[in-house]
Amino acid sequence: MPLRFLRPLVLALSFSTSVAYAADARLFQYSTIDALLAGAYDGNISVAELARHGDFGLGTYNRVDGEMILIDGVFYKAKGNGKVEIVPPQELSPLAIVTHFQPTKEISLAGVATLAELEAQLDASLSNKNAFYAIRIQGNFTGMTTRAIDPQVKPYKPLAEVTKTQSIFKLGSTSGQLIGFRSPAFVKGFNVPGYHWHYLSSDLSSGGHVLALQLTAGKAKIATISTVELQVPDTEGFIAADQFKDRAQELHAVEKIRE
Amino acid sequence: MPLRFLRPLVLALSFSTSVAYAADARLFQYSTIDALLAGAYDGNISVAELARHGDFGLGTYNRVDGEMILIDGVFYKAKGNGKVEIVPPQELSPLAIVTHFQPTKEISLAGVATLAELEAQLDASLSNKNAFYAIRIQGNFTGMTTRAIDPQVKPYKPLAEVTKTQSIFKLGSTSGQLIGFRSPAFVKGFNVPGYHWHYLSSDLSSGGHVLALQLTAGKAKIATISTVELQVPDTEGFIAADQFKDRAQELHAVEKIRE
Repeated sequence: MPLRFLRPLVLALSFSTSVAYAADARLFQYSTIDALLAGAYDGNISVAELARHGDFGLGTYNRVDGEMILIDGVFYKAKGNGKVEIVPPQELSPLAIVTHFQPTKEISLAGVATLAELEAQLDASLSNKNAFYAIRIQGNFTGMTTRAIDPQVKPYKPLAEVTKTQSIFKLGSTSGQLIGFRSPAFVKGFNVPGYHWHYLSSDLSSGGHVLALQLTAGKAKIATISTVELQVPDTEGFIAADQFKDRAQELHAVEKIRE
Repeated sequence: MPLRFLRPLVLALSFSTSVAYAADARLFQYSTIDALLAGAYDGNISVAELARHGDFGLGTYNRVDGEMILIDGVFYKAKGNGKVEIVPPQELSPLAIVTHFQPTKEISLAGVATLAELEAQLDASLSNKNAFYAIRIQGNFTGMTTRAIDPQVKPYKPLAEVTKTQSIFKLGSTSGQLIGFRSPAFVKGFNVPGYHWHYLSSDLSSGGHVLALQLTAGKAKIATISTVELQVPDTEGFIAADQFKDRAQELHAVEKIRE
């Protein structure tokens, strides 16, 4: 008897949860990946301002000084020298993708031998290949290869040139968090189609842009994004960047491991 | 003496104006051009909801039933039968691009022989090729060629097939308004790179997607957009749409005049 009376209340609650969720499932992006590839390394958005748009995300800092990892509202910088630092609020970024992380789905992962296998497992559980997802994975890894870049000096070279001298870290056995986004194919030009991962170890000592991994066990929390907000910089570097060129090949060279 | 005391106040005022402008110079887009090209013709956003995001813009209505022209908060539909109607608030759209139009620049135009010439004249006055602009032109035209599409029935064919049977209107001498956006190259996949124009005559009797024009005299009002908000539909059609394919050729066939 009490159950019958409770049912309408339960329905009403789940409806209002769904509405609140949709309104907040927003990704904020500052600048474009093509501008970064072209060498627009100096943005004018501060970490403090980025924090208004999200508590979770990734990107880089001005002069491509290290990899940005934003977890629970804290901005970390995985540096080219292998160290990880917490970033002061006034630090600027030329490219960042952040969200107020609100996972609606959790999946368990085990025995994942490669990054491609991880992405295939995630793909199998995602219903909409044309949507954006934010993904946070707490895991134990038997292998983790990351990279980070030293701060550049002007005149800036294109990113595909710069990454030829990137620092590569083979972390071996490590536990920590992957911060990632999956973006649909139609983002080519302004973001990275498919998956993009940054890593931070649980002891906060190492991390960076992920090139390869082996995962023994982990939990992925997944948030579906319904709205993407792209802020277009008015910096000299952004305006001057050649964004007409197809930079798909350069992006692949920059994002993936070099054979 | 009074002038010297006034200066700090003037500076403060211009600073606050600039901040207010930047915060509002936002373009809202529902769905992607690639989804529309693939045949995702049924959206779930109403005209009433679009009105919350802008008073100026363009797009289409469900079943690609006519061309959307949004001017001063009024949604017009230029239909495949050549008529123009005002659209009720509950009508749905599969693709729309709208903004609260706040022009910051005005330029005069005269003796423009082709659409390409118009776009070259505008390009010459725009400082940032990597930015978005909303453009409203009130003008007198000696020629204006528009098109509109009749409502489609399921199963929907791709847009490049559908436009083979579009209605083309050669309006001859006409005065009215062009509603347009200029988007940077990096939007390929989700919007139309370069210019995209819809037209509505001053007597509200004719209009549509612009294929060609000759302009004798006009005024262009231009608004710079700093933020683009892309809302990703969760409709069946959007999820199913093949947005992996490069649709640049299809887009050209659909947007431009067929020789």
